[in-house]
Amino acid sequence: MKTKGALEGIRILDLSRVLAGPFCTMMLADLGAEVIKIEIPGKGDDSRSFGPFVNGESGYYMNVNRNKAGVTLNLKKPEGRELFLKMVEKADIVVENYRPGVMEKLGLGYDVLKETNPKIIYGAVSGFGHYGPYTQRPGYDVIGQASCGLMSVTGWPDGGPTRVGTAMADSLAGYSLAIGILAALQYRSSTGVGQKVDIGMMDAGIASMQIIYPIYTMGGRLPERIGNRYESNYPTDTFETKDGMMVIGAANDKLWAKLCEVMGKPELAADKRYDSNPKRVEHYMEIRPVIQEWTRNYTTKDAMELLLEHGVPASPINDLAQVTEDPHARAREMFVHVKHPVAGDTVLNGSQFKMTETDPLIERPAPLLGQHNEEVYGELLGLSAGQIAQLEEQGIM
Amino acid sequence: MKTKGALEGIRILDLSRVLAGPFCTMMLADLGAEVIKIEIPGKGDDSRSFGPFVNGESGYYMNVNRNKAGVTLNLKKPEGRELFLKMVEKADIVVENYRPGVMEKLGLGYDVLKETNPKIIYGAVSGFGHYGPYTQRPGYDVIGQASCGLMSVTGWPDGGPTRVGTAMADSLAGYSLAIGILAALQYRSSTGVGQKVDIGMMDAGIASMQIIYPIYTMGGRLPERIGNRYESNYPTDTFETKDGMMVIGAANDKLWAKLCEVMGKPELAADKRYDSNPKRVEHYMEIRPVIQEWTRNYTTKDAMELLLEHGVPASPINDLAQVTEDPHARAREMFVHVKHPVAGDTVLNGSQFKMTETDPLIERPAPLLGQHNEEVYGELLGLSAGQIAQLEEQGIM
Repeated sequence: MKTKGALEGIRILDLSRVLAGPFCTMMLADLGAEVIKIEIPGKGDDSRSFGPFVNGESGYYMNVNRNKAGVTLNLKKPEGRELFLKMVEKADIVVENYRPGVMEKLGLGYDVLKETNPKIIYGAVSGFGHYGPYTQRPGYDVIGQASCGLMSVTGWPDGGPTRVGTAMADSLAGYSLAIGILAALQYRSSTGVGQKVDIGMMDAGIASMQIIYPIYTMGGRLPERIGNRYESNYPTDTFETKDGMMVIGAANDKLWAKLCEVMGKPELAADKRYDSNPKRVEHYMEIRPVIQEWTRNYTTKDAMELLLEHGVPASPINDLAQVTEDPHARAREMFVHVKHPVAGDTVLNGSQFKMTETDPLIERPAPLLGQHNEEVYGELLGLSAGQIAQLEEQGIM
Repeated sequence: MKTKGALEGIRILDLSRVLAGPFCTMMLADLGAEVIKIEIPGKGDDSRSFGPFVNGESGYYMNVNRNKAGVTLNLKKPEGRELFLKMVEKADIVVENYRPGVMEKLGLGYDVLKETNPKIIYGAVSGFGHYGPYTQRPGYDVIGQASCGLMSVTGWPDGGPTRVGTAMADSLAGYSLAIGILAALQYRSSTGVGQKVDIGMMDAGIASMQIIYPIYTMGGRLPERIGNRYESNYPTDTFETKDGMMVIGAANDKLWAKLCEVMGKPELAADKRYDSNPKRVEHYMEIRPVIQEWTRNYTTKDAMELLLEHGVPASPINDLAQVTEDPHARAREMFVHVKHPVAGDTVLNGSQFKMTETDPLIERPAPLLGQHNEEVYGELLGLSAGQIAQLEEQGIM
């Protein structure tokens, strides 16, 4: 039922669907928690129908739900609700990402769960959180990215607001929920008291823009779209090379001096117009062409080598194929093979949590719908195979 | 010395600078941990020199380092190293974001700290982590965003790779470190054993692209820049209005039907060409103009109202000024006032962790350089004011 890891012995009932909640519980499962994913009988998580598909199985779902056990349960039926509450008695954490109020309508709000198990930690993630004027507004990633201000500062001066090319608001909310839950777990370890953690996607987005907001809230200037350069230092930007494009991040005076040296222009480092980050940011239009003139003489690979030799931060702008082939990503096991009963050999994203005692294990494929009904309901609630079959037939499981 | 919160009683020695590490310890401090930020005497964290400035104090630094105590210590001096090890005896967690190997050079690698305090949790964050071929490469946010593939999928089909308009790779690494540390804390609670957590920014970026990688690793198609629409559903996109632009996220069949209803085009919902997400993604060029023709008749505010009334997810694309004025962000206390001894009244980002028992408190301003030397070294190591003054004079503190 479990992977080994830092969170071994912690049991999570996971009612969440699609991304923010499932990404949170995926990380907790990778870290060793026993995650029981509870899906709607006959239908399951919406993301089961999101591509790409391998033998009909969703790659999206398989990536985000590995290491979890999967059961079905209809919470709208009284018997389903009762069974869920019996599981809550034996769980440490419940995670859900319904629209606020849905759990209450099901008779499964935090107040009810707390009565059933006062030590339960209840983690909720939604577009706008469980209180405030927009609490009932539906939230998808794009709503999160637009509402928190992130799109307004991403993109180019001559272009429109631009979204981050992956579901970043969902990810930020998922990270935040994992941190809130683990902090609540520590509090419970020291006091015995459970609690509810309420994460809003808009809030998580705002909190993640911790270096941009002060420009407005304390500096009084509205940050705008400035492409690939940064507000607080230069040269940190993209530059064309002989065969493509690269990034250079010479973000302090010392690195600027080194970059000038590599380019064979030590006089620039001494130039009073460019001798601090604020000045270089102000004069970036003068600095940028000089660097690009230099990078255009080299392939990205050759420029990288020269720069890194001198300690100047530099990177290719990898596409996803390049990352999967990258020797460093491979050495860090950031892509792992897991055998799925239907899809066969699949490549999943690895875990970023590298730990000396409890390195995460990704070995269990995402569940088929209801795959672990017998295992989970048998072990946890003592139901027989016959009882489970009957409940499945009645549409309760 | 502390805020109250979920992590009360947990003491963190924080050697980290600039963003990834400090953002991690900021969240842990908001959640109640006692964070002692250790800075280089006379110089301090690099980010003290990043704008915007209020009475000479950095808004960047003040936002990310609130709720922490600040001391100075020169780890390159033998006396400084000894004092640090004495503090490690009394700490739960050490956080650093030096380039891998620097702590070992200082004689303060994990092996040494573990000998001093076997229960210590050692959290490290760097560009590429503590092993692998690129471990020695310097890492800044732009290096993280470029190396993990994120820039390659952000932006427009006719434009170049685009960075996220805030230091997102740093943020993702900071979130990851916080989760790794809290998981290690749980493991220590149940086993008594500490460990080292090693986070690489490139890894954290890859892990955060959990829905995009499967398109390549399992679907065999390289995701490219597609602007503001999404790979797996449509219509989830930006649309022009009478007075600007908005986002709509009608990400499933039910919401698509509702959107068609609001637009007065129920026949579209019944159209077989558009009756599933894969089909709508394929035909998005036909759907997009129809929606935009409708949105252009309304101000963003009026279109929002109509859409939300019908349960269709919609949002304005807020700039940072609009977010700070937003009634929901205000109700969720996502901007808080804190009085700083030099800068005066400052507006900081609030915390996204809304918790029923241990709601975070943001009440303590970021420290002046060495502000808490007497308090911390006095209480923790029993040093007298005279001893501290002498150590300061010798450049050890």
